[in-house]
Amino acid sequence: MADAVVLLSGGLDSYTAAAIARGEGYRLFALTVRYGQRHAHELQAARVVAAALGVARHLEIDVDLSAFGGSSLTSTAPVPKDRPLDGTEIPSTYVPARNTVFLALALAWAETLGADDVFIGVNALDYSGYPDCRPEFLGAFERLAALATARGVSGAAFRVHAPLLNLTKREIIRRGVTLGLDYGLTHSCYDPDPAGRPCGRCDSCRLRALGFAQAGVVDPLLGR
Amino acid sequence: MADAVVLLSGGLDSYTAAAIARGEGYRLFALTVRYGQRHAHELQAARVVAAALGVARHLEIDVDLSAFGGSSLTSTAPVPKDRPLDGTEIPSTYVPARNTVFLALALAWAETLGADDVFIGVNALDYSGYPDCRPEFLGAFERLAALATARGVSGAAFRVHAPLLNLTKREIIRRGVTLGLDYGLTHSCYDPDPAGRPCGRCDSCRLRALGFAQAGVVDPLLGR
Repeated sequence: MADAVVLLSGGLDSYTAAAIARGEGYRLFALTVRYGQRHAHELQAARVVAAALGVARHLEIDVDLSAFGGSSLTSTAPVPKDRPLDGTEIPSTYVPARNTVFLALALAWAETLGADDVFIGVNALDYSGYPDCRPEFLGAFERLAALATARGVSGAAFRVHAPLLNLTKREIIRRGVTLGLDYGLTHSCYDPDPAGRPCGRCDSCRLRALGFAQAGVVDPLLGR
Repeated sequence: MADAVVLLSGGLDSYTAAAIARGEGYRLFALTVRYGQRHAHELQAARVVAAALGVARHLEIDVDLSAFGGSSLTSTAPVPKDRPLDGTEIPSTYVPARNTVFLALALAWAETLGADDVFIGVNALDYSGYPDCRPEFLGAFERLAALATARGVSGAAFRVHAPLLNLTKREIIRRGVTLGLDYGLTHSCYDPDPAGRPCGRCDSCRLRALGFAQAGVVDPLLGR
């Protein structure tokens, strides 16, 4: 049984990606990054999801990206609501270099575990247009990793798995339902109220709602 | 005047690289990472060096790489002493993916600053053989950065400057002396005593001593 590091945010996508990794026979080492996100509610969801997945270990790492600023997700700037989801513009919720930082941390852990596989729940179809969710970015990271580590130098091939990359949100949810996942454990909203209830109007809420509607499934989060 | 992020450890190399950046006309934004290193004494040196350089801003970021383990620099495992410096072996002081994490953080800050230049004091001649100090690694990071960020997507060319890459330690020290740098402000030892005095026997101490001897300069740290 090979080990894999799975980046786990507490959202629907990373839960599904991790479950796919488990289905492929990997032993899971879940990594959650507390990066100064305003929706810290997702961290609690990540713990619940990690337990539901039965991961071998769940590690939470702090990296305060809010120190750099530049994003409405790590500041008190308003999160955009009801904006067009046509991918023509990178919204203010973009966090500079976030997935580069996340993959770098995953690479660090993978090397100490002796693992060559990382799973990330990025998606380049029903998404917010973030540059670091695209296949060319992931390929460039694999090439970097081969040069960056002692394992890479000794010939190991580091792989970034993004099993949701080319799926629509509808397909992701159908896949998760087939795998028996309980999406009621997940949290997607960028701007929840103090009780953790989703706003329903940020990109993340709307992409989620669209996916459930198109999949013909009721979002279990709505009934809670 | 263009802005540049400079990775500043508190050691001799990053001080020199930052001074070279300043000499090239960049306004400096110094980034120091507290990564769980046992030689935390260098953090105080980084503050002193940043002040001496007159940086526009100095930011310290915490990323606890000791949570992953895998290095004698982030654990209580013994630091190797008096080992051959022939570059045939990667020593236990190697910290998995450290420079990948550092450059990812520098990239994040650069993007929020609207900067395209990062300076790093890596050196691939008189060094410990770490894979993430080699030119092919730095080139791969530049190619990643072009794909990772909104600035990159909009056409900005992110550059990783490593002005010490092909210099010997002797040449680095000569260069710094010419620039009027006070190396007595820096700290290089991986395993200092509780008072912060260098051990004299780790790779870092020995490379430093060799460099000063070959440059024909007395290390000002020794007199303090």
